[in-house]
Amino acid sequence: MSHPYVELTALFERHHHLKSAADVLEWDAAVLMPSGAADLRGGQLAAVRVAAHELLTAPRTSELLAAVDESKLDGWQRANLALMRRAHLHAAALPEALVEARTKAATACEVVWRGARRDADFGRLVPLLDEVLRVTREVAAAKAEALGVSPYEALADEHEPGVRTSDLDELFATLGAELPSLVSEIVEHQGKKPAPIPLVGPFPAEKQAALGRVLAERLGFDFERGRLDVSTHPFCGGSPEDVRMTTRFDEADFFSSVLSTVHETGHALYELGLPRAWVRQPVGKAIGMAMHESQSLLIEMQACRSPEFLAYFAPLAREHLGSAADGGAFAPENLLRHALRVERGYIRVDADEATYPLHVILRYRLERALVAGDLKVRDLPGAWNDGMRDLVGVVPPDDRLGCLQDIHWPSGAFGYFPSYTMGAIAASQLFRAANGKDATIRPRLAEGDFAPLVAFLREHVHGQGSRWTTQELLERVAGKRLDAAGFLGHLRERYLGEA
Amino acid sequence: MSHPYVELTALFERHHHLKSAADVLEWDAAVLMPSGAADLRGGQLAAVRVAAHELLTAPRTSELLAAVDESKLDGWQRANLALMRRAHLHAAALPEALVEARTKAATACEVVWRGARRDADFGRLVPLLDEVLRVTREVAAAKAEALGVSPYEALADEHEPGVRTSDLDELFATLGAELPSLVSEIVEHQGKKPAPIPLVGPFPAEKQAALGRVLAERLGFDFERGRLDVSTHPFCGGSPEDVRMTTRFDEADFFSSVLSTVHETGHALYELGLPRAWVRQPVGKAIGMAMHESQSLLIEMQACRSPEFLAYFAPLAREHLGSAADGGAFAPENLLRHALRVERGYIRVDADEATYPLHVILRYRLERALVAGDLKVRDLPGAWNDGMRDLVGVVPPDDRLGCLQDIHWPSGAFGYFPSYTMGAIAASQLFRAANGKDATIRPRLAEGDFAPLVAFLREHVHGQGSRWTTQELLERVAGKRLDAAGFLGHLRERYLGEA
Repeated sequence: MSHPYVELTALFERHHHLKSAADVLEWDAAVLMPSGAADLRGGQLAAVRVAAHELLTAPRTSELLAAVDESKLDGWQRANLALMRRAHLHAAALPEALVEARTKAATACEVVWRGARRDADFGRLVPLLDEVLRVTREVAAAKAEALGVSPYEALADEHEPGVRTSDLDELFATLGAELPSLVSEIVEHQGKKPAPIPLVGPFPAEKQAALGRVLAERLGFDFERGRLDVSTHPFCGGSPEDVRMTTRFDEADFFSSVLSTVHETGHALYELGLPRAWVRQPVGKAIGMAMHESQSLLIEMQACRSPEFLAYFAPLAREHLGSAADGGAFAPENLLRHALRVERGYIRVDADEATYPLHVILRYRLERALVAGDLKVRDLPGAWNDGMRDLVGVVPPDDRLGCLQDIHWPSGAFGYFPSYTMGAIAASQLFRAANGKDATIRPRLAEGDFAPLVAFLREHVHGQGSRWTTQELLERVAGKRLDAAGFLGHLRERYLGEA
Repeated sequence: MSHPYVELTALFERHHHLKSAADVLEWDAAVLMPSGAADLRGGQLAAVRVAAHELLTAPRTSELLAAVDESKLDGWQRANLALMRRAHLHAAALPEALVEARTKAATACEVVWRGARRDADFGRLVPLLDEVLRVTREVAAAKAEALGVSPYEALADEHEPGVRTSDLDELFATLGAELPSLVSEIVEHQGKKPAPIPLVGPFPAEKQAALGRVLAERLGFDFERGRLDVSTHPFCGGSPEDVRMTTRFDEADFFSSVLSTVHETGHALYELGLPRAWVRQPVGKAIGMAMHESQSLLIEMQACRSPEFLAYFAPLAREHLGSAADGGAFAPENLLRHALRVERGYIRVDADEATYPLHVILRYRLERALVAGDLKVRDLPGAWNDGMRDLVGVVPPDDRLGCLQDIHWPSGAFGYFPSYTMGAIAASQLFRAANGKDATIRPRLAEGDFAPLVAFLREHVHGQGSRWTTQELLERVAGKRLDAAGFLGHLRERYLGEA
């Protein structure tokens, strides 16, 4: 018989093959699948995922995990083994009937959610979201026991391994206390300056596509190991050897399309930069959703909304999409004003860097209460609107622009939202660390050259795979764990000009 | 516990989901996958196929198959159960090590074959094809014992369930005895007439694509349940709820592109017409490769090369691709001369209706001898060229145009070639039967209207799924089993004008 660790790596490689096969099927469904195939695709995805799940829960897997002699493993191997154990714990915690109930409840709820959102009719969603929450709480209880953490942490751990509510509470307490008044300051500050000159379209989709492709290439996206296509909602899917990112084009607003493309390219660069030798093993994957979001935001929010990059970008955009008579709309300073505009709004995905965390804090508070049983689904709209008033300072006119806007809860993803803000904070910390380490990064952005920045990320983030947790990695690379106070300082500097 | 038959249908539905997931992955690999993902894709396909294989060989499957009370099943269910048993026998016949050895030998051989064909270097292929043959003979022996048939029949049964060498021997004896001299007659007959006026390009790919799409729509291809894309080698993949057909464009020769598109559409119509209620069960699938090929050839070779259809097609093609100065090249009579041109050639896939079976007979004889151990791989080129001289009347100048032309043997597919000719014969029988039953079919083709023809096929062929074998279905629909003499009569009538 072979060494148990070696047999485990073969088993987890097979697991990776099944999971990444499902990723291709999901990409296909979002990008080009004929509409009549939706039901079949559901069955295909379920069958492939069940096969993957069965690998993790097989008796042989438990035996092997128990039999490994850790003392013979090096650092990477030990980290890999720990992640194998985590994957096994997550999978084995749930009886098959509960896995099935979870998928079923979410699938049914998602369908109704689409109609309910369209019609701003929360009532229709209540019974289905109730069922999702009921099953989710069961899942949380089972996983909490298996992992030795709280139920909410057990759910959040699916997206962000090792996350602790004590950390989240601290982050969100700091931001929640200071951010609402800081947003007021920024809005007031920006109100004193001239408004940005509008970018008036239409901007033809094919011209936006050409510009997006230029930027993806400049960023170093490898078209031999990935594709860039179009889908209704942009995403980055696939797996490190076959990265499938998508974008969309709004003919009235090219700038958001471009920023969406570079955002997804940030995700893609993370996948493409994961350590080659480990790419089919747990330790070779991205750490979690927080670090993933940090990589997309680092590229989009930090690098591509910098004055340096926009100095390069403005003439390029004008060449692709502008006209002689655009009256300064394509000037770098004007694009920067667009890029850094802060406005209170109802919709999370449209939010700017300063208000976004407030949307996340609201969701964090509410999902904690839902999972704890302290908030009923039927009371969600009221709690939502109260929270929006307190945190963001606006109250949505209906639930479509309120608690029906996100797919996360209907699809059963509780504990996911904090990743967005963890990622935003990490992005600002990592960009600062990168610039501190290599003073050429910013000047080279002004030439449209991302090589020094990406080289830094490859070495210190992408190439590390999942060897460290998010907090450990930040401490190693940026000298500090997730730093809410530092993030507030970053916002003051960037939006109020305080140094 | 549920009824064993009911549990089996759930198990086979899951099997269908896994197999059809693999079909999507294969389509993706052929159409749009980035080149760097090839190795990963191999692993993904293997993992999904192993999971499907394990379902069939699980102890529970054997138990259930043994426990079913057949007396309680209706005709469709009994046919379904028989096909479940067949699938189980095929899967259980091979130990896992042999399945793996088979895939490995074929994968290695295919890679070398590509280079060997390019360089016309058969010697390079010999050791790898030797290994494929060695493993194939082992597979054949194991399956022969499990199925109670001869080793060659066991291999052919993978592509054409229930096929018997006695039937094949008889078909090919009849054709082999008469076809070489009939081809001479036809070539001589055509030589006395004016040669077709050449169709001179270039014909832009996008115009060919538009024309191909018009024809696919006219044929009734359902774009809600399928796609038409481009790949190096045209094929029809996917599954009945998500049919993925492809085509290619030769800018020098639009007619072959168009005929390739309608050929694949014929395959697609079969898939789309399979009985909806059974489409995820064994009995709801196509009978085998012979009937599949009959459906593509019925559309392409029988319907679309008819004078009736070409009367409709000629002005349409001229509108898309012709010019005022084409000197009669786009006249229906000229297109018909192109469509029915008979020429001796080296390459099977370029062969016409009359010479094609001779290419197949050669391969049938050779693969029978290889599987029986009567022919060594190293002696293949000599045997090939001798056979070409006797059967087709030409000898290829090198092995690239000879025994290296087909991927089948290098990829481990022995017993597949006969399907092409069984399909060609069945196509002519079924087209005759259809016209006998519905006299409007031919006149409606002259209006570009395939509805009566497709309605006949839906009812009598597609909608029957795998309820009957190929021979049984032909007997029911065309009144005769596969009829080589009738096929020779069809050729005499079509190419020599004998009625």
